Amino acid sequence: MPPETRKTYLRPLDIRQGRIDMAHGAGGRATAQLIDELFARHLGNEWLAQGDDGALLPAPGSGQLVMSCDSHVVSPLFFPGGDIGCLAVHGTINDVAVMGATPLWLSAAFILEEGFGLAELARIVQSMAQAARDAGVPIVTGDTKVVERGKGDGVFITTTGIGVVAPGQALSGCQAQVGDAILVSGTLGDHGMAILAAREDFGFTAPIVSDTAALHGLIAAMRASGAQLHVLRDPTRGGLATTLNEIARQSGVGMLLQETALPIKPAVAAACEFLGLDPLYVANEGKLVAICPCADAQHLLAAMQSHPLGRDAAIIGTVHEDARHFVQMTTCLGGRRMVDWLSGEQLPRIC
Amino acid sequence: MPPETRKTYLRPLDIRQGRIDMAHGAGGRATAQLIDELFARHLGNEWLAQGDDGALLPAPGSGQLVMSCDSHVVSPLFFPGGDIGCLAVHGTINDVAVMGATPLWLSAAFILEEGFGLAELARIVQSMAQAARDAGVPIVTGDTKVVERGKGDGVFITTTGIGVVAPGQALSGCQAQVGDAILVSGTLGDHGMAILAAREDFGFTAPIVSDTAALHGLIAAMRASGAQLHVLRDPTRGGLATTLNEIARQSGVGMLLQETALPIKPAVAAACEFLGLDPLYVANEGKLVAICPCADAQHLLAAMQSHPLGRDAAIIGTVHEDARHFVQMTTCLGGRRMVDWLSGEQLPRIC
Repeated sequence: MPPETRKTYLRPLDIRQGRIDMAHGAGGRATAQLIDELFARHLGNEWLAQGDDGALLPAPGSGQLVMSCDSHVVSPLFFPGGDIGCLAVHGTINDVAVMGATPLWLSAAFILEEGFGLAELARIVQSMAQAARDAGVPIVTGDTKVVERGKGDGVFITTTGIGVVAPGQALSGCQAQVGDAILVSGTLGDHGMAILAAREDFGFTAPIVSDTAALHGLIAAMRASGAQLHVLRDPTRGGLATTLNEIARQSGVGMLLQETALPIKPAVAAACEFLGLDPLYVANEGKLVAICPCADAQHLLAAMQSHPLGRDAAIIGTVHEDARHFVQMTTCLGGRRMVDWLSGEQLPRIC
Repeated sequence: MPPETRKTYLRPLDIRQGRIDMAHGAGGRATAQLIDELFARHLGNEWLAQGDDGALLPAPGSGQLVMSCDSHVVSPLFFPGGDIGCLAVHGTINDVAVMGATPLWLSAAFILEEGFGLAELARIVQSMAQAARDAGVPIVTGDTKVVERGKGDGVFITTTGIGVVAPGQALSGCQAQVGDAILVSGTLGDHGMAILAAREDFGFTAPIVSDTAALHGLIAAMRASGAQLHVLRDPTRGGLATTLNEIARQSGVGMLLQETALPIKPAVAAACEFLGLDPLYVANEGKLVAICPCADAQHLLAAMQSHPLGRDAAIIGTVHEDARHFVQMTTCLGGRRMVDWLSGEQLPRIC
């Protein structure tokens, strides 16, 4: 009898027609085959190839670590500008990067619904692989579970990221200071409106495309400019309004925005108006808020605008003293209104 | 007007009667309230209190890092001996620990189904908090998403763990050597049969209780014994049979088990026989396989048996040369049979 390995026992996965069944989550031969022929094939790297229950990684040196995680349940799974796969990579990279850290490694855990098509799964995993390669942040370990039909929704992906930050370089939402300038790296609301448009056919003529992107390159360019950074954060669920309220609360300050300064694509503004949504509350997946000393703002803005992901960057407001930690906005008409936290759900399952 | 914070805007969560709604996943005020009043309240520690998109952690020193993740979809959520909360903590700690690392930090990402009871969620989060405290491994960052009713199943929890391992101390499934002894730390199949019994009322008179437990303390005791360790792994999904086949494949060896040596509780053996299940394929959540040089086996066994989680440890077989990487077993009757990979699903959603 010739030497056998597990692989020779099985017919190859039928990626085109095949579907996830409960055995793919049972931890036995079918799970191993799914890992070998789909996950490892596309995501393959030296850490996944270790084949253990986790990844053994190099010592990260003297810096502090940053750890962040996000479950992704976006619906639909595919949308203009991206899919759940690249979104799951970008989202966690960004959460690590806005803390001032260099993202190093990702884990990815999949919860699959019985009956989910292997072709769609392969497309999603390829998109993750491409996003991870482009970002230079490998997916080093993972997990696969399967739930019965009707107990999930195709696929949910949870990614966790580890980054390293040099001593004294970490950023936090508590570091905004009175007198600081508030910047955003580009137009608001693209991701959320792209998802909404993908869900329903509103007959919008102008296509709206998600901005999903990894921001650590932009952040590195901002650091390299020499401008001092007090806070970075990516305004995802809840939009810019909620992110600024979080920072205002953490830092114990107030904020005043200028409505005329907010960069919003005309198609997004029109779609928001049509649907009665406020772009300040619509999710972004490739944008960041930066808060820096007023004196550094123009310099930082120039650095952002010279990076492909910051071309539409703008200075949108200032930090001031306010014991109530209100975020307010001077409107186009010259009035002033509150920009409160998102209450209730504006758009479910946006990421 | 007195100073206001976000917290004063809201009535407290009704933990006893309340239910998850879509707003709890929208990233706005309801999400923040759920985090403050439920997650942070029970899991609270200095890292979660940072309030940023991730946790800023101390530099782990000169050791290598280990990263591992697991999604938990166990059904039912509560079972004799544990629940999805403590299971999610133990499972990931064990995956980090069997690689030879000291588990340091966990992340936890929740996918909640609309309508899920806050009382059940609170019970689960308290169980996680207790398990994390007992293990000395804090949950330092997290995420919460909500999916519509019928698109999830109560709660899924994905945990990711980071550990550190001293240079040269890392373990891998590829290090089993011909002549090594194979040990298990205790009785087989307890977790899987406890879950199955919790799902259906089989009328078993003897209660079967999950063995869910964090194993890093036992592993530390094994290390302290001075016995050389080649491989550690926790035989979860797919059971001991699948775990040994994985190791045999990784190490390029064969294995021979002694059926008479396998520790199995009489109640578990009886339930398995009644249901036509093989305990070798039933999941464990607080057991490990250890492979060590034959000369160290008795010494290692003694160290395991003197730890509370290793009282029923046993030497169950040996590693030998086999180009086919077969795992075989000498049966009680003196014959020899193949112990193959788990094929298909024996028990879905066991962890």
